[in-house]
Amino acid sequence: MSKQAIGVVGLAVMGRNLALNIESRGHAVSVFNRTREKTDELIAEFPDRKLVPAYTLEAFVESLEKPRRILMMVKAGEPTDATIASLKPLLDEGDILIDGGNTHFTDTIRRNQELAQAGLHFIGTGVSGGEEGALKGPSIMPGGPRDAYELVAPILTEIAAKAPDGAPCVAYMGPDGAGHFVKMVHNGIEYGDMQLIAESYAVLKQVLGLSNEELGQVYTAWNQGELDSYLIDITSRIFGKKDAETGKDLVDVILDRAAQKGTGKWTSQNALDLGVPLPLITESVFARVLSSLKTQRVAASKVLSAPSVKPFAGDRTAFIEAVRRALYLSKVISYAQGFAQLRAASDDYKWDLQYGTIAKIFRAGCIIRARFLQKIMDAYAHDPQLANLLLDPYFRDIAANYEAALREVVVQAVSAGVPVPTFSSAIAYFDGYRSERLPANLVQAQRDFFGAHTFERIDKPGSFHADWA
Amino acid sequence: MSKQAIGVVGLAVMGRNLALNIESRGHAVSVFNRTREKTDELIAEFPDRKLVPAYTLEAFVESLEKPRRILMMVKAGEPTDATIASLKPLLDEGDILIDGGNTHFTDTIRRNQELAQAGLHFIGTGVSGGEEGALKGPSIMPGGPRDAYELVAPILTEIAAKAPDGAPCVAYMGPDGAGHFVKMVHNGIEYGDMQLIAESYAVLKQVLGLSNEELGQVYTAWNQGELDSYLIDITSRIFGKKDAETGKDLVDVILDRAAQKGTGKWTSQNALDLGVPLPLITESVFARVLSSLKTQRVAASKVLSAPSVKPFAGDRTAFIEAVRRALYLSKVISYAQGFAQLRAASDDYKWDLQYGTIAKIFRAGCIIRARFLQKIMDAYAHDPQLANLLLDPYFRDIAANYEAALREVVVQAVSAGVPVPTFSSAIAYFDGYRSERLPANLVQAQRDFFGAHTFERIDKPGSFHADWA
Repeated sequence: MSKQAIGVVGLAVMGRNLALNIESRGHAVSVFNRTREKTDELIAEFPDRKLVPAYTLEAFVESLEKPRRILMMVKAGEPTDATIASLKPLLDEGDILIDGGNTHFTDTIRRNQELAQAGLHFIGTGVSGGEEGALKGPSIMPGGPRDAYELVAPILTEIAAKAPDGAPCVAYMGPDGAGHFVKMVHNGIEYGDMQLIAESYAVLKQVLGLSNEELGQVYTAWNQGELDSYLIDITSRIFGKKDAETGKDLVDVILDRAAQKGTGKWTSQNALDLGVPLPLITESVFARVLSSLKTQRVAASKVLSAPSVKPFAGDRTAFIEAVRRALYLSKVISYAQGFAQLRAASDDYKWDLQYGTIAKIFRAGCIIRARFLQKIMDAYAHDPQLANLLLDPYFRDIAANYEAALREVVVQAVSAGVPVPTFSSAIAYFDGYRSERLPANLVQAQRDFFGAHTFERIDKPGSFHADWA
Repeated sequence: MSKQAIGVVGLAVMGRNLALNIESRGHAVSVFNRTREKTDELIAEFPDRKLVPAYTLEAFVESLEKPRRILMMVKAGEPTDATIASLKPLLDEGDILIDGGNTHFTDTIRRNQELAQAGLHFIGTGVSGGEEGALKGPSIMPGGPRDAYELVAPILTEIAAKAPDGAPCVAYMGPDGAGHFVKMVHNGIEYGDMQLIAESYAVLKQVLGLSNEELGQVYTAWNQGELDSYLIDITSRIFGKKDAETGKDLVDVILDRAAQKGTGKWTSQNALDLGVPLPLITESVFARVLSSLKTQRVAASKVLSAPSVKPFAGDRTAFIEAVRRALYLSKVISYAQGFAQLRAASDDYKWDLQYGTIAKIFRAGCIIRARFLQKIMDAYAHDPQLANLLLDPYFRDIAANYEAALREVVVQAVSAGVPVPTFSSAIAYFDGYRSERLPANLVQAQRDFFGAHTFERIDKPGSFHADWA
């Protein structure tokens, strides 16, 4: 019996779609699931595809060419550890385990060490693109030993999404947890993008009173320009979708409680650990949390007073353009924060991340895919050690041209009582980052006053303490 | 030889000042330090005080009445574990170890369990008030087994600060980590208070051009009213302090890089874990981090364009009052978030926290002591299960009367390019919390579109998935 070049463990939607993707590139794929039903369903649904079912891990492992390549698509955390523990005694030195789940990068660092001691290779990889991406071509962010990556690179390259210029959206990210870390920041950025779009929707709806039809037109138009991206595209389509049951616009039938699976939270918690400012993504995580307090909000809306708002009296077309500019500049600011986090992590964990390559593989397949990522790629091509994206000439010019619009939108929203936590966090970060002088001198004075925490001086190095009393 | 009722391990500034505080209430105190020098220094400096030095842990333990009461004032983390490990074999069942360091509450939960198994009592307690508070009367937040607390309550009550009504600023917070948790949130709130004051300073200085002398007068005046607090008081004094070396105002000589010791970060990370919105404190943590990027900021200030700002043309006195109102309402909003975090933690960790009692012991001794805490105490006396402080009649009225001022200050600052991350986060939270409807329906639509994450409906319960294609 011939053996397969790769096997997939875990046949929930992401696992089965990745197996089908690999098979569609001409490879027979061994497939295994903890419960037999999922395996049988997959085989029954695709009887003509070269999927080779295994019903024990032993048979599964036995069915693979050496060095074995095993892609695990199981739940992050304990189930992943359990799967590794079951596989480990069956594997031989040099075999390669790939974890494609949404794993916290610290778990990946730990597993890399543990498996390296057993002579096994471990690749922790981000996979973004949802169900459809998994099936047709996701963005793939692998991390681990580089020589192990080279052994799986051909297959990963085949199944990855292709950017507009034909480049595959996969690349070696760095050692141990680098791949899952990049995926985590990708997801954090996704939280930010979605909240920014939600705020643009709230402003257009509440300040200008746009209908869903008009909103659909606005996002469709925006998707033709700088904002061209998957998330703007699906947003434009959402406004055109009717509810099959009531005939109403579906968006109005959906409850305004945003859920989350935790990767945005991880991104913020890590930024706090690294000591890198990530306020925009963090505001977007808290915005989801606040939205989930629906019962409290309904009660509060009856008690807390709203500002008295005059109908918008300005130029409506110009204001829509201002919202577009505010959204684009805020997006730039969010990515500037996210990429600064990647830079801090690369220094801290010694990963030598290639920021331009990361932008490059985000250009297709993943949820945050956007025309704009080419600009980030260009910025790092121009200066691989760029401290902050806002300092790149293209983004600096966007800031110069759009900052007035972002201020205008925040001013209008705040005056009208429309919550814009990420728009206002964006302009606060921008103004903070470009401030030669911040009021943190007062904070240091207070800390020295009450806790003798000392301060630095502007005129000479050293730590100083004043006798404030 | 007579034995002492209490001993202190760790004679850095907080430990020695607490020992002196206890001694000043008429108790002889055994003192021990890992290195002999600190013990000798303390005894030499205060030869007439009833401080009983011990030079081995064995002698120290031997010198104490049973059940022994030992207050540990050592560095949080590994040093605390090491101290406990050294003491443990020397102690008898029923002895009480008190950790007064800035310990993460999860460590306290763990140590409580470990020491309970050994028949020892463990009290993890927050101590706030800095050096001076430790010496003259701190705010004390003890957590652990209630019967163990009762054994140390008399001494803690004696050394605690006294509120204006004479009540001591100590109370039993709850089991295991409750005390250190309350201290952590206290510190997070302190970060928020300090950043809000710093932003008020930036606005008054940059929008109105107030001098340090005028700023000192403004904060002195504010300290006579609703904002009456320790932090406003020391702020007013800071503006009057001259640099001994240059003769300049010291505040202008201090470098604008704010440092931190991590408790603000912990507070934000825990809020993310609990799923409770804490954007204001988190923005204040990130504001410190951003301030620390001084070199980048100086470079960015030369590259990134500032808005063109017209000189302030309004009523200056009225605007100063608007800033005062913005500061007070933002403070209310920050505490609303912090106390909502306490509530979520109490539910999650099963602590039965008494929010009114917490406000009560914050009224004196600690860094955030303020007249305003009486209002929080009153709010919980009126409704012990209040979901959010903003719903209390007093705070609701403050919001109604001051929200226009907060909006005005944010609008002025954003227009003038003055970064106000916490002021703008405050109004965003307020507007979000009082929104019956948020744009999170769009976020849920997007999540269901790209990831089949399902959504809820406004018209019936359940989870739904649409075929968006």
